[in-house]
Amino acid sequence: MKMDVLSIFPTMFDGMTGNSIIKKTIEKGLVDVSIIDFREYAEGKHQTVDDYPYGGGAGMLLKAQPIFSAVEALRERSPDTKPRVVLMDPAGKRFDQKLAEEFAQEEHLIFICGHYEGYDERIREFLVTDEVSIGDYILTGGEIGAMAMMDSVIRLLPGALGNADSAVTDSFSTGLLEHPHYTRPAQFRDMEVPEVLLNGNHKLIEEWRERESLRRTWERRPDLLQNYKLTEQQQKWLDEIQKGVD
Amino acid sequence: MKMDVLSIFPTMFDGMTGNSIIKKTIEKGLVDVSIIDFREYAEGKHQTVDDYPYGGGAGMLLKAQPIFSAVEALRERSPDTKPRVVLMDPAGKRFDQKLAEEFAQEEHLIFICGHYEGYDERIREFLVTDEVSIGDYILTGGEIGAMAMMDSVIRLLPGALGNADSAVTDSFSTGLLEHPHYTRPAQFRDMEVPEVLLNGNHKLIEEWRERESLRRTWERRPDLLQNYKLTEQQQKWLDEIQKGVD
Repeated sequence: MKMDVLSIFPTMFDGMTGNSIIKKTIEKGLVDVSIIDFREYAEGKHQTVDDYPYGGGAGMLLKAQPIFSAVEALRERSPDTKPRVVLMDPAGKRFDQKLAEEFAQEEHLIFICGHYEGYDERIREFLVTDEVSIGDYILTGGEIGAMAMMDSVIRLLPGALGNADSAVTDSFSTGLLEHPHYTRPAQFRDMEVPEVLLNGNHKLIEEWRERESLRRTWERRPDLLQNYKLTEQQQKWLDEIQKGVD
Repeated sequence: MKMDVLSIFPTMFDGMTGNSIIKKTIEKGLVDVSIIDFREYAEGKHQTVDDYPYGGGAGMLLKAQPIFSAVEALRERSPDTKPRVVLMDPAGKRFDQKLAEEFAQEEHLIFICGHYEGYDERIREFLVTDEVSIGDYILTGGEIGAMAMMDSVIRLLPGALGNADSAVTDSFSTGLLEHPHYTRPAQFRDMEVPEVLLNGNHKLIEEWRERESLRRTWERRPDLLQNYKLTEQQQKWLDEIQKGVD
């Protein structure tokens, strides 16, 4: 997969591409990441990327020309791909695991990271294929949003995660939140690990996990249960949890 | 404000703290950011931070001890603050602009960035004050989530943004999505700026913006309108937009 990022702060990505799973995935050749300073594509002596908004108002806007030219150059560089051109924008479609899985199937993604007060509308209207938001909060720029999307997409690429199981049992992948986890020691200060996890009875452990997964989902994200088809046993557990039986 | 971050990949934050508004805000002394490698607090010769889950299963978990010890050391270092201890977790409360504003009022925030399959449950239960998720997608670790929260909180600190207006008129801050913006040139290739923005009539410009803000919110995020009190004029515009009058 090819991932290009347009940003006027390209060094913001150094930490991400130089660390951990992302670095290894790049080294394995599973993804080819380029961070491009679109200021290099700005016409004029001063290579201006921003200008005042028509009609007045606070803040500066990103101009159309540098971003159009940069995306066009990237398209020419990869003439055989049909890139998704993704604009980071708080008013965009909400990014979620489903969209991450969809992006993970693409061969070429281009992320446009904005700054200042916003973008010239013609970028949205005529250049991008997807306007996406990572959540209902405002960031100083699009870089952190792009990192979030890149990270969640890259970890889904076949071979990216060492243990293939890990991507499957995550929260959201099963439709329920994950059950609690414990590791050694069985007693840390005065805090203990639940008995059932220590006795080696795998059937009881699986039941406990499924039940706690249901409990956590019901307590924290009941909305997820609306689209989840409960088994008969799960329904029984949920009834008990809701009645406070335990 | 004091912000401490616990991470086993501290260099991931270099790009963020070295760039743009965040860097300037740190330099102005408005926020004091420390990135702490909690492996330094791990006991034992190998300074192990992770271990296998009780009851079996894929992946490794973060152990309780290093994170408890690191948070306790940070508390001792700032004995006069009551820190919010924030755990990045996809099963946590959804981060949004309201929570960003709440965090911006605090004097001390500690962010715990996880990795591997998850955390020993005792960290959640006995150490943290807030479990927070930046969205319904899975990341390889908590670092990018912490960056998103830090960035959205830091920009709200008084004096962080050059133009005080910018934080107020953003999407979500007003309850509606932002209207489209345009900057020069008025014609870029064959794409034009709407006439109304060029004629200098400020009353018409304000009306156009308010109406387009309503239109965009209705088209993309009708859920936001449920909690928004429309003026009589706005209701009239919305009726027209919904009827497709224009």
